[in-house]
Amino acid sequence: MMSELRKDLISGRWVIIATERSKRPDDFRPAGGAAARPPEAHGFCPFCEGNEGKTPPEVFALRGPGTAADGPGWTVRVVPNKFPALTPGTSAPEHSKGIFEWMEGTGVHEVIIENPEHEMELGDLPDAHLRDVLRIFQQRIMAVEGELHYQYVQLFKNKGKEAGASLSHPHSQLVATPIVPKRIKEEVYGAERLLRNVKECIFCRILREEKAMGERLVFENRDFAVVTPFASRFPFEMAIYPVRHSPYFTGVRNAELESLAETLKAVLGKLKGTLADPAYNLVLHHAPNPSLSLRSWPDIEHSYHWHFEIFPILTKVAGFEWGTGYYINPVPPETAAGFLKSA
Amino acid sequence: MMSELRKDLISGRWVIIATERSKRPDDFRPAGGAAARPPEAHGFCPFCEGNEGKTPPEVFALRGPGTAADGPGWTVRVVPNKFPALTPGTSAPEHSKGIFEWMEGTGVHEVIIENPEHEMELGDLPDAHLRDVLRIFQQRIMAVEGELHYQYVQLFKNKGKEAGASLSHPHSQLVATPIVPKRIKEEVYGAERLLRNVKECIFCRILREEKAMGERLVFENRDFAVVTPFASRFPFEMAIYPVRHSPYFTGVRNAELESLAETLKAVLGKLKGTLADPAYNLVLHHAPNPSLSLRSWPDIEHSYHWHFEIFPILTKVAGFEWGTGYYINPVPPETAAGFLKSA
Repeated sequence: MMSELRKDLISGRWVIIATERSKRPDDFRPAGGAAARPPEAHGFCPFCEGNEGKTPPEVFALRGPGTAADGPGWTVRVVPNKFPALTPGTSAPEHSKGIFEWMEGTGVHEVIIENPEHEMELGDLPDAHLRDVLRIFQQRIMAVEGELHYQYVQLFKNKGKEAGASLSHPHSQLVATPIVPKRIKEEVYGAERLLRNVKECIFCRILREEKAMGERLVFENRDFAVVTPFASRFPFEMAIYPVRHSPYFTGVRNAELESLAETLKAVLGKLKGTLADPAYNLVLHHAPNPSLSLRSWPDIEHSYHWHFEIFPILTKVAGFEWGTGYYINPVPPETAAGFLKSA
Repeated sequence: MMSELRKDLISGRWVIIATERSKRPDDFRPAGGAAARPPEAHGFCPFCEGNEGKTPPEVFALRGPGTAADGPGWTVRVVPNKFPALTPGTSAPEHSKGIFEWMEGTGVHEVIIENPEHEMELGDLPDAHLRDVLRIFQQRIMAVEGELHYQYVQLFKNKGKEAGASLSHPHSQLVATPIVPKRIKEEVYGAERLLRNVKECIFCRILREEKAMGERLVFENRDFAVVTPFASRFPFEMAIYPVRHSPYFTGVRNAELESLAETLKAVLGKLKGTLADPAYNLVLHHAPNPSLSLRSWPDIEHSYHWHFEIFPILTKVAGFEWGTGYYINPVPPETAAGFLKSA
């Protein structure tokens, strides 16, 4: 059977679904099966309860009554990254050096320690705790968006060394940037263009079609739906879409947060069950800082729709991908959805 | 010292040069030093001399007189990829399935086996042999461009498992696609826009400034210059620019090919010397198929300038990069150039 080239409607990126290289979940298991993937060794961990003094002072923590900041007794704790990619500062003008352009690296880089226990993964947290983590994601994003010179807040999670995590204690990260990132710009402008063509939010439309077709629908509840995207870049890639149209993750309501916790738990469980606890990246896409009035910026309210992307790290990004910006995916998303559904 | 945000002029991508995380070459060496990185074990290798029957029939080989196709006696051999991402076929119309767009995966996927010996790396080949490899790159690209429905030919090399190579025998690959890839479109349109602003080819301009500044200039000879780009995404990333303006790698002349072989040998030697034989990707960027008249396509002749990108695989692309399309690079390109120059 011939490969397929599939277009990601919003970014315009094409993906090669390479049937000649087709793989099954077992092809990605470490030799010897799940048991052969040893837990990552860890010595001293600055994120474990009792070691609070080894991180920068906390900016927020969900704590038991009577416990002191930077001491034990917390369930979720947020600290500045000790080796920040960007550091707080006032609005950054652009400089030039000859033809080259640069600005000072102002921004925010925080770590959200999801729980005090080293071995307790995000997907294994009790429902109420997971909902708390999601609410703290919202709160930290809103806090950082209060600083008007940060145009975008990127929330993400790297789980496992292969996914770029330097510490194995479960945590997520937040980086606020003084510019709207390229990928978000592409999505926002792509969605705006499609709103004009299709006369509705392209994400809402995709969601409706995916629900009708069903072959890439992995999970759904009242408020969320999970699909393996039609033009998935990676094997077992998933997207989590809210059913209610909104550009803002921070606008998710309390009852919806419970549905989201249920959804995320299902997704992480399916990933673990299908693929022997793989390394993964979880990435939030939402609208740029709503406190900003960005000049000549499209009508985000109607065209943009926040979502999470999640993908296990099973293949290498190589010369073809770096050269072209296209991807070769050896697992058709319909096949991936089949395995994930039944996991 | 604060991090810097630097702009890649052509793509508009920003990169964080993260001085807080600053690293030296030794930080990237495997524990125990170079000797600790064992050569990749290999059993039977289909690319070694004598095993020609285990690949699809060759499409081209540089052979000694009197030797037969698909037998021993070659120095460079080109075969179709046994597990091709794309397969030959006639011009592919776009189909749709509901709102989704796709086309059949037509294209070409070839492997250029750079030499018959398993352990002989590209950078260690004798000068004349390396020049032959480069000339065969040109010839294969031209042969594939003769098929008018392939809009772009991506040439690349993945060296080492971490860089995505599934076989360790030194080889490069060529993939012809029925659409001009996203990254190339971005570069072509970016260069066109800058030509209008700057009134000259932006690559020529960058080259002149880099030569004048010197701090990111790693190597130069009569026909080529190698720099660590101002907005390098990766530690020790390099770009190889031809001095003579041309959009077409296939237009490189014989005398220039000798300079290019010298340049590539220097670059690969510096990479190996500085970083203990790292995995790397080498990627060609050149103009889309010149036999095509692409509608509303910019003035490529004056604005686009072919080049190679090369980068060792030392860091992981993680949630921040996937979310934003921006990169965090812990080694300033000026620091990288310092180490590479003296290697």
